[in-house]
Amino acid sequence: MSLRTQSRTQIAIVGAGPAGLLLSHLLALAGIDSVAVDVRGRREIEQTQRAGILEQDSVDLLVDSGVSDRVHRDGYRHDGIELAFGGGGHRIDFHGLVGASTQLYPQTDVFIDLADARQRDGGDVRFGVTDVSVGDLTTDSPVLRFTDADGTAHEIRADFLVGADGSRSLCRHEVPADRRNQYFREYPFAWFGILAQAPPSAPELIYNHSPRGFALISQRTETLQRMYFQCDPAENIDDWSDDRIWTELQARVGANGYTLAQGPITAKSVLPFRSFVQDPMHYGRLILAGDAAHTVPPTGAKGLNLALADVRVLAEELERALAAGSLAPLATYGERALRRVWKAQHFSYWMTTMLHTLPGATPFDLRRQEGELASVTDSAAGSTFLAEAYTGWPERR
Amino acid sequence: MSLRTQSRTQIAIVGAGPAGLLLSHLLALAGIDSVAVDVRGRREIEQTQRAGILEQDSVDLLVDSGVSDRVHRDGYRHDGIELAFGGGGHRIDFHGLVGASTQLYPQTDVFIDLADARQRDGGDVRFGVTDVSVGDLTTDSPVLRFTDADGTAHEIRADFLVGADGSRSLCRHEVPADRRNQYFREYPFAWFGILAQAPPSAPELIYNHSPRGFALISQRTETLQRMYFQCDPAENIDDWSDDRIWTELQARVGANGYTLAQGPITAKSVLPFRSFVQDPMHYGRLILAGDAAHTVPPTGAKGLNLALADVRVLAEELERALAAGSLAPLATYGERALRRVWKAQHFSYWMTTMLHTLPGATPFDLRRQEGELASVTDSAAGSTFLAEAYTGWPERR
Repeated sequence: MSLRTQSRTQIAIVGAGPAGLLLSHLLALAGIDSVAVDVRGRREIEQTQRAGILEQDSVDLLVDSGVSDRVHRDGYRHDGIELAFGGGGHRIDFHGLVGASTQLYPQTDVFIDLADARQRDGGDVRFGVTDVSVGDLTTDSPVLRFTDADGTAHEIRADFLVGADGSRSLCRHEVPADRRNQYFREYPFAWFGILAQAPPSAPELIYNHSPRGFALISQRTETLQRMYFQCDPAENIDDWSDDRIWTELQARVGANGYTLAQGPITAKSVLPFRSFVQDPMHYGRLILAGDAAHTVPPTGAKGLNLALADVRVLAEELERALAAGSLAPLATYGERALRRVWKAQHFSYWMTTMLHTLPGATPFDLRRQEGELASVTDSAAGSTFLAEAYTGWPERR
Repeated sequence: MSLRTQSRTQIAIVGAGPAGLLLSHLLALAGIDSVAVDVRGRREIEQTQRAGILEQDSVDLLVDSGVSDRVHRDGYRHDGIELAFGGGGHRIDFHGLVGASTQLYPQTDVFIDLADARQRDGGDVRFGVTDVSVGDLTTDSPVLRFTDADGTAHEIRADFLVGADGSRSLCRHEVPADRRNQYFREYPFAWFGILAQAPPSAPELIYNHSPRGFALISQRTETLQRMYFQCDPAENIDDWSDDRIWTELQARVGANGYTLAQGPITAKSVLPFRSFVQDPMHYGRLILAGDAAHTVPPTGAKGLNLALADVRVLAEELERALAAGSLAPLATYGERALRRVWKAQHFSYWMTTMLHTLPGATPFDLRRQEGELASVTDSAAGSTFLAEAYTGWPERR
């Protein structure tokens, strides 16, 4: 202990990805001090390829809180998506149905904007730390310990600790097993994701149902595209040449009348599918946010948006907790966040099961899915139900 | 052959349940002759206990075509249902959301009204026949053969034959295997259904989700109630005393704050769950309608309504086919009917999977279902999407 610097802050945050940094930013706006640490280096986080669809509220939060207006400048507004099935495309018009849109803006850019904003505003963010641990969680003075990139050991006491340390959260495991519920679901498929140097094949995302399995045609820039197709979780990337990938993608979207613009594939990866929720979202003075508390399959593009929604609520409730000297707002945070989380879990599950081919699926299952997709696209109510979930539930606005 | 009476009609109908009788009735209104036969006796059909929720369009069809206005007099209009989950009830207000309602009116009464109307109008309907067979389906003069209740053998030539002979259809099997697709789905549970001498426990149907499994609280009259609870398909009725049944039902609905009015149980049965579709819905001059072509699980109350919807379309297309001397309207009938059928298959599957506990369901699955139910009941669009399906899709009006 004698070798550690000792200090104090109001909120100590484990994890300096988008959730941790946005929390630090929002707390600073409320005049609350925080320290955020991450075992990853800033460059490492910047280079992580992740999802890139922001809900309307996520965009507004970043812009209105002064993080960045680059999301408008460099992102692409999408006023709808295509649901492709049964031989053709059917547009879900978000703007017309619910007056909202989404923004194509990669998670890595959200991170860069947040990291820049924290640096600009003098926020205390430490990347590349090691030996992170937390303790004294059920006391009035929980502690965060870590060694910084220069090798100096630190011990920071705080009013509250926040675990925003992602799906492999260390903080999550600090909650005793008899004090939390964990909910899991595995899926019998994964996504094969590629980045391709090609022009966009469509102006908006295409969620493509086909007898060969699901495909998602997304975009990135004018010259770089992101696409995915349903595959086995054990799929070996090396088995997939560029030619084989394009043949498979063209066959899936061709069933619905689309043709993809092809180009060199610069990245290939297999993304596992998993649903997870831990509740309650706090233990003593440790609070979980974002992927540390819940993960969703990527089909509904909800992961990052849920993390940002958590943090917005958490910043409000932490402000209340500090002002009142009470733990009650932590439970309120969990209740508010989990209601949205379970809706998002269902939405992600719904989009997944409506569009993917399950192993052992019968012709009945395929036709029933087409019946479901027709029910949704034929109905203003069904399309609106999907649109309000995809763009973020409207009770938040 | 020499012992058979020989005659001719325009449309020969196998099956004189609600589908066959309504078809005969609608054809008569269009000036088209028909003969309908059924191997069951009239009393036997009257005593079959079946579902009793009519869509708005089904009610209108029966009343507007002059079958009966008893459906209004003796039925009960329901302007909504309760979705019960997570500790409480959430009403779906059909009338407020889609301006439609449903009518609680047992299938046996629909049958009685139709049989009375056919008798009143001099329709040719023969109950209790035997040795039914059909033939010459791909010729211009298909034939229906049967022996009537008096032992007289008949051979009736017709322009078209209609198989409206229910889920155990004989006609369905006349379509060669290489000329049709059959789509199946089995479900790993059934419904335990009871009739109880008790006052109504609620003014409208309660679709009750609970960790113990699904329950449906329905009604019949002021003194007789229909209730169901999810059970194993192999459940033995003899294992269920009245006491045990009431204890189980009260536990399931009690989880959401309801208490049932109890009384002597006068009937117990186990209803299997099964989804089935055969397409195309015609072969040569044989056309299938209702349960002969498709069955749905009972959760969405769609079986009888689909049969009546089939028949409405079929009567129109048969009139066209006779006028034009063409088979093309038969394909049109199938296309029109199947679009609705697959939506209904999905709706029935959706209501089933949203509300029932699957064997091996995890706590995640239970919470996700509650998230789904909350998504639907919190959202005007979600509630409308359910209401328009439950009351019958509005493009039919």
